This record gives sequence, structure tokens and C-alpha cells, in this order.
Amino acid sequence: MIQPKVLKGFRDSLPRQEIIKKEVIATLEKTFSTYGFVPIDTPALEYTEVLLGKGGGETDKQIFHFLDNGGRDVALRFDLTVPFARFMATHTHHLQLPFKRFHVAKVWRGENPQKGRYREFFQCDFDIVGIDSLQADVEIVTMIHSALVALDVEKFTILLSHRGILNELLASLGVENHSTEILRIIDKISKIGADAVQEQLITLLQDQKTTDTILKYIHSHKDNTPFETLEEMRVLIPSAETHINHLQQLLTYVEHLGIEDRFTIDPSITRGLDYYTGIVYETLLDDLPDIGSICSGGRYNDLASLYTKQHLPGVGASIGLDRLLTALEELDHPLVSELSASDVIIFNQDEELSIHYHKTAHLLRKEGISTLLLLETKKMGPQFKYAQAHHIPYGLYHTEQGQFTLRHLESRTDYPHLKLEDVVEHLKRM
Amino acid sequence: MIQPKVLKGFRDSLPRQEIIKKEVIATLEKTFSTYGFVPIDTPALEYTEVLLGKGGGETDKQIFHFLDNGGRDVALRFDLTVPFARFMATHTHHLQLPFKRFHVAKVWRGENPQKGRYREFFQCDFDIVGIDSLQADVEIVTMIHSALVALDVEKFTILLSHRGILNELLASLGVENHSTEILRIIDKISKIGADAVQEQLITLLQDQKTTDTILKYIHSHKDNTPFETLEEMRVLIPSAETHINHLQQLLTYVEHLGIEDRFTIDPSITRGLDYYTGIVYETLLDDLPDIGSICSGGRYNDLASLYTKQHLPGVGASIGLDRLLTALEELDHPLVSELSASDVIIFNQDEELSIHYHKTAHLLRKEGISTLLLLETKKMGPQFKYAQAHHIPYGLYHTEQGQFTLRHLESRTDYPHLKLEDVVEHLKRM
Repeated sequence: MIQPKVLKGFRDSLPRQEIIKKEVIATLEKTFSTYGFVPIDTPALEYTEVLLGKGGGETDKQIFHFLDNGGRDVALRFDLTVPFARFMATHTHHLQLPFKRFHVAKVWRGENPQKGRYREFFQCDFDIVGIDSLQADVEIVTMIHSALVALDVEKFTILLSHRGILNELLASLGVENHSTEILRIIDKISKIGADAVQEQLITLLQDQKTTDTILKYIHSHKDNTPFETLEEMRVLIPSAETHINHLQQLLTYVEHLGIEDRFTIDPSITRGLDYYTGIVYETLLDDLPDIGSICSGGRYNDLASLYTKQHLPGVGASIGLDRLLTALEELDHPLVSELSASDVIIFNQDEELSIHYHKTAHLLRKEGISTLLLLETKKMGPQFKYAQAHHIPYGLYHTEQGQFTLRHLESRTDYPHLKLEDVVEHLKRM
Repeated sequence: MIQPKVLKGFRDSLPRQEIIKKEVIATLEKTFSTYGFVPIDTPALEYTEVLLGKGGGETDKQIFHFLDNGGRDVALRFDLTVPFARFMATHTHHLQLPFKRFHVAKVWRGENPQKGRYREFFQCDFDIVGIDSLQADVEIVTMIHSALVALDVEKFTILLSHRGILNELLASLGVENHSTEILRIIDKISKIGADAVQEQLITLLQDQKTTDTILKYIHSHKDNTPFETLEEMRVLIPSAETHINHLQQLLTYVEHLGIEDRFTIDPSITRGLDYYTGIVYETLLDDLPDIGSICSGGRYNDLASLYTKQHLPGVGASIGLDRLLTALEELDHPLVSELSASDVIIFNQDEELSIHYHKTAHLLRKEGISTLLLLETKKMGPQFKYAQAHHIPYGLYHTEQGQFTLRHLESRTDYPHLKLEDVVEHLKRM
């Protein structure tokens, strides 16, 4: 006998989780489709060199890579951005630019599993590439808004910032040579707090005044409306005018769409990665700010420079699906709490009637009613228990002369003497 | 620069293919849900021993396996049946039996790629486990029927057979010790033809009469109705009465459901695997018989005996998703030919109007209309070309005083002087 164990950091998805996950993904994908975005997929396994570049480095230890039977060095994808860059380089001659795609798929990382972190998890990315226009930024942030509204997540805030403004500030302070480290320190502010950021900046820069100016910038949104924040930035960093105007235009767009309530400016948002060059954003759930950003992204200057000479500027974002699902659970979101796999269960009380049971099930299913049929005759006790375990709201009894009794199981309310069309009508109304 | 190449036997899924695949999967999953089946998922990576058992053998070369960073021997799953068996053994105490699940996911095999065979492909499995009842067989074959009807695949035939009947025949002929080889030979009949089967059986059995009887059995459906075939079987193999009755009962059920036209008996169906023990089936597309079975399955005696002492009989089937997708392409199925990613494209003719374009897009999308917005002002030529490349049926012009002209792009029919609500109504009607 072999022990049926699962690898550390990996997990099965049981029906309840899987139903919720599929519902969330379907809702997101439907939103992306209404925006004219199209889905793609890429192989789970690619050449290691393609995924890691020629260097490798830090990421190297975190990825699953090996020699395949043909001696090729191959690796499981660790994100969806690198395969997308490779995809664009491979297919650019087939694709009309700008190209708007979404990709929801598993990725794998060998990092040490911790609470809420797994070695196999989902990413959900969407990008517009081949265009350097503010309108693309508008479309991405609007789509994030629409996706969360479609999921009935009501209280959220999209925090906007611009990498260019911070870069101008650092240049004006003469510390642009430290910009990567400074960005990473600021990026941690929600985790480590403002005091620790100050401390780390002083340690790095050895200069109180410069540190104070940077802190003033990342706090410029405190007690301000977004438009007031922009005015403070104009005073603090006159050289960043173009970037500040871009942020202002983005806000004007969302105002015209009537969705400005969900947007704010937060200059401490930097997104740690070097990759981003323009407007960047994170999305917090107002009731669960500590869970961190559930959707982050921004503008980048060139997607696929590793693989092609074609310049592919773009803008995109990624939803942390596992984090979002955890949040929905914690918020006791209707999607999670009102879950039922089937609309009705057909009780099986008499083997002689089994053909009738199958006929009834067949007709209900044709009407789109999800019908669980019990496939053996059993006492009612276990049948109720089975229904309860599956959270099924209604049970159906076959009575004499082809009639039916429908029971609402929780309240034990019976609806007797029904014809099949009455059953259909009743269940469709619910 | 790194060459953006994809591994041999792997491939990207471009938007058109991916849209079709998602649509087909969503339709199948919706059907499974109306039957009260629930989805599960399992890790892509498992312990090699869990997937292969302690032996390994032939499959060993075909799977991707390696030592991970922690020195564990791990492998990518090569089917969904073995992980399902492991899943049942892991979670059996949580799950109410019978358990009805579906699982649509990627699997990986290292075999040599040939036409239509890839190293990464999808499987779509559905099973009922923990019950040994003909009613479960009925439900599975009915669900196959419903799934294909839901996909608007009209001409198909589900070929039924029973492993027990053939086993009884072989026992009565005294050749049960060769049953595995005989099953495998018969299983190839659609590929190699009846003459080759005869030849191989004679070579194996060294006996003309035994071979003739086996051939008579596997041809007993020729020129017969299913019920006549059953009668011939009763005469030929009296000892198989129970199994023959089961087949007959299954046919009676599907007759009562009014779907018997799509079912037939074909005793040459054996399903090569040892795993199956009862009724087995394959599904052929009437217009593309040579493509082979698009959905096969049957009853097995014990799912998870490798991992648990709990006896888990069951019945299940698997849809060959890649083969089905190829078939839909070849049949020029409406799903494939009428594909359009967006309902309407908003032409971008004047940068000054861009806020209006976004507002219009936002309102149309709220109505569920898939709207592609061009994000830069361009000449009309490239805009038409972009619309055409995306197979978008309608284009929308913004005209003076907040009015719109909707153009059906292929026929170049214009609908002028519309208000936005007229546009919505028109597009929803289409």
C-alpha cells in the first residue's frame, strides 16, 4: 500500500473551494471579455533559459527545473509575465497591436511554504501591449474596478502612484544611484511601518534632510484629496510635471466614468520591481487592508526585450487569486456562503421507480436545473444527510399518479400535488 | 537576445483556440453541474511513487519526473485517474459516497510527439465512485449524451459493450489465460481492421475455431438492432446472462429517456486497460469516425486499491478534449466558425473625444456588451483592419450632439442617428 500523501506546499482543491474558484475566475474572465480582452495560454514547462534569462540568480533556487528525458534544461513557469513576453516575441507577426490579453493559470515556485503561501498557485494577469497611451492605463484601472464590482466586492480602494515622479524626486535630491534600494524600502511601508522606512532610509542615505524630503513625498496624500496631493507634488517636484499631469488625467477619466470614489493617490506605492516605469497601482480591500494588495500593476516600457528587438510598451495588472479567495472567505462573501452545488435532490425510495427518477432528472436538467439523483434506494435518514452535506436546498418526492412533492429542506416546508412543470417553475423562481 | 522557442511537443494557445477551448470546457462543466457533479483539482506535481506505484515500468519513460530542490522524486501527473484515486484515499473521510466529480486539467507525457499528439494536453474526466449500481452507469452515459447535445454536436453514436461478456466467452473457450492479449488485439480493430485482428488472434491462439467464435462475437452487432445483438449473445454465451441483462437494462433506460437513437452495441469495444470490469463504451462522431473515440469509459471494480483498503467501485469516462476540438474544427462547427471576441468596436477618430469613447465603452460593458475600444486616434483604414482581424461584427461612430452611427462591418450597413440606448438595444438583439 502506498501512502496517499501530497507534496509539501501543494494541496488538493476540494469541491467547495473549487466551485468558488471557478465562479470567481468565470466572473473575472467575463469582465475581461466585455473589455474585448482575449485569453491565451502558454506551456507549463519551458526552456529554463527562456524563463530565467542567461543569468538566473536569485529566482533560480525558487523554480522547479530539471533535465528532461531529452537532456533539455526545462522549468515550470514561475509567473505569467515572462511566458507572455516570450509569447509576444514568438507570435508578434500574427497579432494585431495593441494586443489585449488575459491569462489565468497555475504557476509554481519552490520557495518555503508559509501561511497562505503555496508552491503551486494561480495567477490572473491582464495586459495591453504595443501602445504607450494614457488611455490604456485608463482601460486597465477601469477594468480592475469593473472586475471587483462584478464580484460584488463593494469596499475597495485603488491606490495610484507614478514611478516617474519618485524618480524625478530622487534625481533632484541627487540620490538616483540608490533608486532601486529606495524603491524597495518604500515598497515595504505597509508591512514595516513609516518609522522603519525612515530608519532604513537614513541608514542607506546617511542624510536626514534627504530622508525627510522623501518621507514628505510619500506622505503627501495624508489628509488631502487626490487633486490636492497632486498640487503638493507639483510644488515639491516641479521637474515631474509631465508625470503628475498623467496621474491627473487618469483621475479626470475615472471621474467622468463616475467611479472616482474608489480611487486615491498614494505616493508610497512603488511596486518593487525594476520593470515598471510609469503609473503603478495596488488595490486594497477596505475591510481587510492587512491582507495586502489583491490587484497590482502598472505601466512598463518594454515587455519582451529579452527575446525581440521589437519595442513593446504596455500596461497590465495581476490579481492575486488565492489572496482574493481567502479574502472572500474572511468577508463571508455571498459567493462563499450561499454556495450549493445542486438545486434539488431526487429522493430514491423505491427501486421500481428508478426509471421514473432518471426521467424526472433528465427533464429537470434539460431545463438547466442542477439535479442530484440518488442512485440507490435508501432510508430517508441517510438521504437527508447526503442532501445536507451537499447544501442542496430542495428535495423532490415522487408520489402516486405521477405527481410530486417538493420540500424546502431547511424549513421542512412541503409543496405537494405538483406536476413536473410546477416543479420546474418553482425551482426556476428560486 | 534569447531565442523565444517553445519545447518540442508543447504549444501556445492563441486567442482564437483559447476562446473555443474555454467555451467548450464551460459548456461541458455546465452539463456536469446540472447532473450534480462537483469539480475538484489536484496538484500538477506529485510524488513519483504515488503516481507510478512501486513498479513504474513502461509508463516510467513517458513521464516527466525529477528530484526537486528538497531531493524528493516528483513527477508531473500523466492522467487524471491516478490523482483521483489518490485524492479519494486522502479525503474519503470528508466525502459523502457516492461521490460524483469532474476534473478538467492539463496532463503531461514525455512520449514522442506526432500529429495531433502533444506532451502537454487536456483531459476531462468524470466519475461516480463508491457505488456499484447500474443506475450509475445510466447516469454516466446519459451525461455523455447531454454533454454532446449541449455542444450542438448532433451526429454521434455511443458504442456499448461489457467486459464481463467477453471474459465469459473466453472462459467458455478455455482461453482466459490469454485474455489481456486478446482484449488488446480486439481493441485495435478500428485501427487495423478485422482481417488483421483475425490474423493476430490465430497467431496467438493457434486455433481457427476459437478465433472464429471470438470473431463471431465481436461481429454479432452487424445488421442487427441492439436488442437482436443481445439475443445473439445469449445464444453464443449462456453463462454471461447477468452481464447481458445489465446491458439490456441500460438500453431500456436510455429508451425511456428517449435518447436511444444515439446508442448501439458494439462487442468489439473492449477498452484496452485491465482497469475496467463492467460495461464499457466509446463515442464516435458519425461524420468523422476515423478520428476515433472522443469519449470513452466504463465501470471499474476498485479505484484506489493502491492507497487504501476501502473498496471504491465506480464508473467514469473521459473526453479527449484536444481530439474533440480538432473534430469541431474539421466539422466547421458553429462554435468555431461564428467566433467573435467582441460584439462591437468603438472607432477612435478624434483625440478630443477620448473621454466620450471611454464613457460609451463603460456603459456598453455594463450592459454585458463586449466592447473593444481603440486606444489611439488612427485613420479609418487601420481601424477597419483591426476590427476585421478580431472578427468584430459592428463598429460604432460617435457623431455630433452625442449621437451614434452603428455600422455592420461586413455588409457596410449603417444605422445612423442612434441614441446610446438604441445602440444597446440593437446589439443585444443581435
